[in-house]
Amino acid sequence: MAGTDRRFRDSALPQPAIILVRPQMGENIGAAARAMLNFGLGEMRLVAPRDGWPSESARAMASRADEVLEHARLFETTEEAIADLHHVYATTARGREMAKPVVTPREAADTGVGRVRAGERVGILFGGERAGLDNDDVALARAVVQVTANPAFSSLNLAQAVLLVSYEWRLAALAAGKATTMPPAPEEAGPVAEAAQMTAFLDFLSAELDAAGFFHRIADKRPTMLRNIRAMFHRADLREQEVRTLFGVVRSLSGHRQGTRGAKGGEKGG
Amino acid sequence: MAGTDRRFRDSALPQPAIILVRPQMGENIGAAARAMLNFGLGEMRLVAPRDGWPSESARAMASRADEVLEHARLFETTEEAIADLHHVYATTARGREMAKPVVTPREAADTGVGRVRAGERVGILFGGERAGLDNDDVALARAVVQVTANPAFSSLNLAQAVLLVSYEWRLAALAAGKATTMPPAPEEAGPVAEAAQMTAFLDFLSAELDAAGFFHRIADKRPTMLRNIRAMFHRADLREQEVRTLFGVVRSLSGHRQGTRGAKGGEKGG
Repeated sequence: MAGTDRRFRDSALPQPAIILVRPQMGENIGAAARAMLNFGLGEMRLVAPRDGWPSESARAMASRADEVLEHARLFETTEEAIADLHHVYATTARGREMAKPVVTPREAADTGVGRVRAGERVGILFGGERAGLDNDDVALARAVVQVTANPAFSSLNLAQAVLLVSYEWRLAALAAGKATTMPPAPEEAGPVAEAAQMTAFLDFLSAELDAAGFFHRIADKRPTMLRNIRAMFHRADLREQEVRTLFGVVRSLSGHRQGTRGAKGGEKGG
Repeated sequence: MAGTDRRFRDSALPQPAIILVRPQMGENIGAAARAMLNFGLGEMRLVAPRDGWPSESARAMASRADEVLEHARLFETTEEAIADLHHVYATTARGREMAKPVVTPREAADTGVGRVRAGERVGILFGGERAGLDNDDVALARAVVQVTANPAFSSLNLAQAVLLVSYEWRLAALAAGKATTMPPAPEEAGPVAEAAQMTAFLDFLSAELDAAGFFHRIADKRPTMLRNIRAMFHRADLREQEVRTLFGVVRSLSGHRQGTRGAKGGEKGG
């Protein structure tokens, strides 16, 4: 089925994961698949589609792009959907009150294509039809993608948002392809941390903060503060080695190695 | 109706005429109106819509963009629809065997915006859903606009083609300068931390790490590790408020250590 795969996506194109988070109507998932394939993108991921999966209405709307749907991967949570990715963008209609870089689809495509060509895995989150991504989803991303629309009439439907991002991705990829051969930045610093490693660290940090009573007198602010703390670390674009260091830092500060160090201390003392 | 006109289109934006030639479904005309207004365009012209005009299904689909429909002008032929225009583009899915310049939406927008700003009137033709523009329509245009899509799956629906062209038009207009309503990045997150505050935090962190014995078995690596830790936090481009949060985080984590192990530390020290 080489011919099929040929059509299913442009194998010459660096591929990002297009991640639809809690989409509602199957028709819109199908339309998003068409929009992706229009620009040669084939890697779709779905987080908890409201009406279940697979979806007949998605397939009917996708028409000849049904191969994108057949290859789509299904996840229960956004964390799981991005676990193997190195760099995640969140598409939002309006700016959020989060200290994250806000980029245009064009900027995201330029950077994203560069990252994929350098060997990283990139994903772009799109929210459901009604309310878009929630703040917890956005917190998982390194940057927010915002379309420069008419401020008085800015809401795009899901497939249109996917269309614009896919369109810019294709143009950026074609431009990068022409530009010359791979410019793989010498990664002296080692590989960028995958989302799963970041999540593990941030979960560990919040557990330690809970244990330390950090939220003791501000329990109502816990979700916001955790989101802000996550955002800071995401923004730093950490390497694997750096996340390991941060694990050590938190472990050390919180005396998590109490057993080891206690014993040693005991030996010394004794 | 100044307020209405405000929303109806971005009056600061140089406006091209978006001309739908023999569109079929009212829904698609409504969706095209939405796509236009998403990027601030308001001048729609219709050539012989199949199902007559006005159209209830167009209005229903347009929703809040119905003002674009109300201002739409109706013509019987493409010649009449473009009679007052200086420069006309024809949007096609594939190249035609016609000796006309073929440009991308981006190139068309760049040139088109320039022409409108120079006082010309510009129009962009879009064909009907089934077969697009016929050769006689294309012959009326000075140039052909062709979207750089996946050659194996290139057909865009009418509203999507209008969306991409309108999107590029807006970006070109904003880049050209005069139309900017660019959202000034709202610094909800507060001011960026000054270097002195960063230094204070990083000094505090390294003192706490020393106290926790973080460098105990790796004393020779201390300078390098501290440099790396500093680099991570600097890279995150932290806000003042965020640095205060981090102070709290470190204080809380290490206070936890002191709290549970304080007695032991005291014994050691004594």
